[in-house]
Amino acid sequence: MRAYDIILKKRDGKKLSRNELEFLINGYVKGDIPDYQISAWAMAVFFRGMDAEETADLTMLMAESGDMIDLSPIRGIKVDKHSTGGVGDTTTLVLAPLAASAGAVVAKMSGRGLGHTGGTIDKLESIPDFNTFLSRDRFIDNVNQHRAAVVGQTGNLTPADKKLYALRDVTATVESIPLIASSIMSKKIAGGADAVVLDVKTGSGAFMKDIGQAKKLARAMVDIGEEVGRKTTAYITDMNQPLGYAVGNALEVKEAVETLRGEGPEDLTELCLELGSAMLKLAGAAGDLERGREILREKIENGEALDKFKEMIAAQEGNPEIINDFNLLPHTDKTVEVKAEKSGYISSIEALEVGTAAVLLGAGRERKDSEIDLAVGIVLKKKVGDKTAEGDTLAVLHVNNEDNLEEARTKLAAAFSISDKKPEKKQLIYEIIT
Amino acid sequence: MRAYDIILKKRDGKKLSRNELEFLINGYVKGDIPDYQISAWAMAVFFRGMDAEETADLTMLMAESGDMIDLSPIRGIKVDKHSTGGVGDTTTLVLAPLAASAGAVVAKMSGRGLGHTGGTIDKLESIPDFNTFLSRDRFIDNVNQHRAAVVGQTGNLTPADKKLYALRDVTATVESIPLIASSIMSKKIAGGADAVVLDVKTGSGAFMKDIGQAKKLARAMVDIGEEVGRKTTAYITDMNQPLGYAVGNALEVKEAVETLRGEGPEDLTELCLELGSAMLKLAGAAGDLERGREILREKIENGEALDKFKEMIAAQEGNPEIINDFNLLPHTDKTVEVKAEKSGYISSIEALEVGTAAVLLGAGRERKDSEIDLAVGIVLKKKVGDKTAEGDTLAVLHVNNEDNLEEARTKLAAAFSISDKKPEKKQLIYEIIT
Repeated sequence: MRAYDIILKKRDGKKLSRNELEFLINGYVKGDIPDYQISAWAMAVFFRGMDAEETADLTMLMAESGDMIDLSPIRGIKVDKHSTGGVGDTTTLVLAPLAASAGAVVAKMSGRGLGHTGGTIDKLESIPDFNTFLSRDRFIDNVNQHRAAVVGQTGNLTPADKKLYALRDVTATVESIPLIASSIMSKKIAGGADAVVLDVKTGSGAFMKDIGQAKKLARAMVDIGEEVGRKTTAYITDMNQPLGYAVGNALEVKEAVETLRGEGPEDLTELCLELGSAMLKLAGAAGDLERGREILREKIENGEALDKFKEMIAAQEGNPEIINDFNLLPHTDKTVEVKAEKSGYISSIEALEVGTAAVLLGAGRERKDSEIDLAVGIVLKKKVGDKTAEGDTLAVLHVNNEDNLEEARTKLAAAFSISDKKPEKKQLIYEIIT
Repeated sequence: MRAYDIILKKRDGKKLSRNELEFLINGYVKGDIPDYQISAWAMAVFFRGMDAEETADLTMLMAESGDMIDLSPIRGIKVDKHSTGGVGDTTTLVLAPLAASAGAVVAKMSGRGLGHTGGTIDKLESIPDFNTFLSRDRFIDNVNQHRAAVVGQTGNLTPADKKLYALRDVTATVESIPLIASSIMSKKIAGGADAVVLDVKTGSGAFMKDIGQAKKLARAMVDIGEEVGRKTTAYITDMNQPLGYAVGNALEVKEAVETLRGEGPEDLTELCLELGSAMLKLAGAAGDLERGREILREKIENGEALDKFKEMIAAQEGNPEIINDFNLLPHTDKTVEVKAEKSGYISSIEALEVGTAAVLLGAGRERKDSEIDLAVGIVLKKKVGDKTAEGDTLAVLHVNNEDNLEEARTKLAAAFSISDKKPEKKQLIYEIIT
């Protein structure tokens, strides 16, 4: 077998066999096949695509290229949840305790933030003493005892995906649906998930700007799940404005607590009930989505969801008292307000700009090795559709280091558009793909 | 400027500017841009193509990437001729003296054979003492004195093309019309040609199996010539069977002499008159193609064409007596005949198989560093459309080393198809593109 013939075959629109993909991926990881052949192949895949079987084969080859986390000592169906990345996306912090309180098993590995997108591990680390690096045994014990644990990635997970993604990133071959789908799903599978709920964001603040592309990606991932025996449900959700009000690590923990208490933002609450109901259904803890939402609402109302968060924090050495006293979370002394320059209705809030403003304050990383400030960030005071008078506060910046403050403030102010006409209400959930 | 953005732009079907191509090609030659970005770009070009201006820009950038041969001390319009490669293609040996005898200036750099395709420099070196490595001054003197000289390539011509071609060869990106066209034309331009006559072969023995693709390639090269001020005419010609009867170095020299004497194969003679008339027209030595053919026929009939070959051989230190005594050329003691196994008409002769059989005998190179035997080769006795009786000789193998003889004989025999029905006569010249 030669890499040349495999590139040629894909270039000419033919389907690759599992053996051919195996030769390519394993050869690449071993260093037998050079970057320049893989980048030509990736560009051919960009143009020719891959069918469901090829995509599933590639996914499994990448999943199996490194460590496969064995979560079999955990009782029950391990349901993972993955978001393609947005701004102010606090859902994991809410969903892990919420779904666990309703009977699902959440053994989740999460990542750190990069660019304008935050990461769950950074957010959890703003809880004093919270330990995101548990040993495998302790992780399993925690889940068996509390039904929920969220830790950082350890081990050598999906080295093939890491190497391939780094190459795609510099050869303009990232934007290929089967390559994106297999990259995401390979990590979920290597992480030990039995079932997966996917939140595919679409809109100006999302990786997938176009809803048609978002639907294709969701379909590709659900098809992979089907092919490899991991039940997968995908939601297409809106990311034209930030989710909830808070953007920043400790600020989002606070918002998660408020949401678990039933006092959270409407959109974040709705999305958590939706994604959570799918988790319960896949975990066998609810017969259908409607029943799932009912159970979750009940768990919020009776306080069990918040109790579960407290329990999870304590089990990972964090200070559970933050739930009662937000002053225990990192916070800034200084806040700066952005005011409306005219009256009218908020017609749009560019999520990407808000995320970038938060990075400028220090809430996120520009590069993988950047230091971040867990206290800083942005809290929106208005969302799309809200009425505003001239001089009303649109958003508040929580600031420590003032170096980039002016740039962040300008960017945040520019993220808001105000119009005379009340904008049409956008759907939060566009579609559910199963 | 970033290579990433240039790849992305081409991937998305946009036109690249000269500056962008310059950044890419010069950066690649210098080693600033890695192979894996160039192969991704080449694959994007395979799918998206390039327009006439982009292709011309790329051609000039590759031509200018190394030495540019300055033939300005040579008086007159230097007309080059290029064939995309076939089997038994003896045209350059005929055309250099023939066109020169009729007033054209032929200052030609040629290559060696590789694979099933022969090379003019190998063929000339089968003439005892013939010197294919003249200094630049002597090359120019020879052309000024005799109007014809054919030498091997010297200097660092088109390093960008060499590097890019080697990469395309292992990444399944060879078969792109604009990339093939710019590769060929960059070498002609760096070689100092003022005008170019192209022989684009099509058929089973050619690189371009498909006539539609051959026409596109011809059009792309003529367009480049137009864009960069080198008058270019392209012929689409048949390579479904070998050209002429001889395949092998000394054997083809003998056939060239016979053709210059007016006793050559019909197809080789016709093709030389056609290509030669275009050379005369571009050189200003004939008003039109019809007049060109008349002049060339006259030069063959009155012996001036053959005299010119003699003159050219002597001027490059070769033994001109080979023209009167073919025994002075390398030749084999042993010949082996391939006989017809049934009676009928020759319906096809697979040129690729004939060329491969000749390589097996030692007439060509499997790798760049293979030794070749100038004496060996194949002489066809029948061509497509000829009648044969069972037991008639179809072809003769001229053999020195018998190691691969059986394999060569079998391959050569299998190259012939015999049918009961007389096949339709194929055109030799399909189209002229100007």
